Amino acid sequence: MQIAILLYDRFTTLDAIGPYETLSRIPGAETVFVGERAGTYRSDLGAVGLVADAALDEVTAPDILVVPGGPGQTAHMADGPLHDWIRAVDAATTWTTSVCTGSLLLAAAGLLKGRRATSHWLGLDHLAALGAEPTGERVVFDGKYVTAAGVSSGIDMGLRLAGRIAGDTAAQIIQLGIEYDPQPPYDAGSPEKAPAEVTAALRDHGRSLLSGGREPNA
Amino acid sequence: MQIAILLYDRFTTLDAIGPYETLSRIPGAETVFVGERAGTYRSDLGAVGLVADAALDEVTAPDILVVPGGPGQTAHMADGPLHDWIRAVDAATTWTTSVCTGSLLLAAAGLLKGRRATSHWLGLDHLAALGAEPTGERVVFDGKYVTAAGVSSGIDMGLRLAGRIAGDTAAQIIQLGIEYDPQPPYDAGSPEKAPAEVTAALRDHGRSLLSGGREPNA
Repeated sequence: MQIAILLYDRFTTLDAIGPYETLSRIPGAETVFVGERAGTYRSDLGAVGLVADAALDEVTAPDILVVPGGPGQTAHMADGPLHDWIRAVDAATTWTTSVCTGSLLLAAAGLLKGRRATSHWLGLDHLAALGAEPTGERVVFDGKYVTAAGVSSGIDMGLRLAGRIAGDTAAQIIQLGIEYDPQPPYDAGSPEKAPAEVTAALRDHGRSLLSGGREPNA
Repeated sequence: MQIAILLYDRFTTLDAIGPYETLSRIPGAETVFVGERAGTYRSDLGAVGLVADAALDEVTAPDILVVPGGPGQTAHMADGPLHDWIRAVDAATTWTTSVCTGSLLLAAAGLLKGRRATSHWLGLDHLAALGAEPTGERVVFDGKYVTAAGVSSGIDMGLRLAGRIAGDTAAQIIQLGIEYDPQPPYDAGSPEKAPAEVTAALRDHGRSLLSGGREPNA
């Protein structure tokens, strides 16, 4: 079972690593990071350089596609080689997945038309504008399309998908292996739960983020 | 404020990326990945290559040190350049931190003697053998030493530390920015909560893991 995780400049690191750290632990899984060219891609905050070991044309039939989000997504919304590749591999995937604004790339490539899907909470309107039906859920399954909400939600997505693929016990072994017993110090992880001034601060940053600006606090 | 995240071969990716994705978003933070040599380090599961932009001697006075864990930790338990560097920078850090079996490196370097600390649940006995006082908590503060439990706990550690450094509102902005509203599909994230056969399966793998073997499900 091959898992392909797409990289591009200014991706958000945890968007890629949450699914990686869960799905790659499924027995028999083999993961490859892939980009338009093989080589290093820098994340949104700049400090992370992650290596794509393969170029797009070297990965032609992954079983699972993972598309992370991040501010760099805005540079890839027009049709081109990335969309062509996404559509081509999607034709044969078992699961096509995204985290955060990665769903905007799937939608821009035409894969989420009329489908229930999600994205970073700041990206839900954009997702609707691209023809998907955004939900407020953290992880959304619609057929073989699995989309997750912002950044950290890729861990929950990976565990749910691991359960579907390998069964509950295998997924629980992965969860206990990464000791995923979350204890956030605040209950501020969704716009409904966070204090109003916290949500407002991010909404302001979010407008520039989704138009290609810098990440909040970067 | 400089954050140095240590890399070595066969580190666990999420151990490094959880603190990165939270601490690096503190306003004014600048993060550098550092290794014995500058260059690419491969993670435990093999597919991730993460770039250390600096060698040890190029990072002499970070404000925050983050030491991730992973099966490769077992190769660095003896005294040598890595321990020398850890001790040297620790002398001037504001916070010295670890995730997962990274605490075994801090302890082996002599920094956790008599201190309350934690590690991956499979590493707690080793931590005790190295002179620390393991607790069952997910994140442990003892003075400037902050240790987190297995793999995913670095996200909780990063948010707690962000709150100490930059205040609750700044930390909540980070939490909402990464949409950290965890919804694990199972309640199996600690050995107390997981089904007995799940815990047993990992205990068996863990013995080989902590003696330098392969990661479970790798």
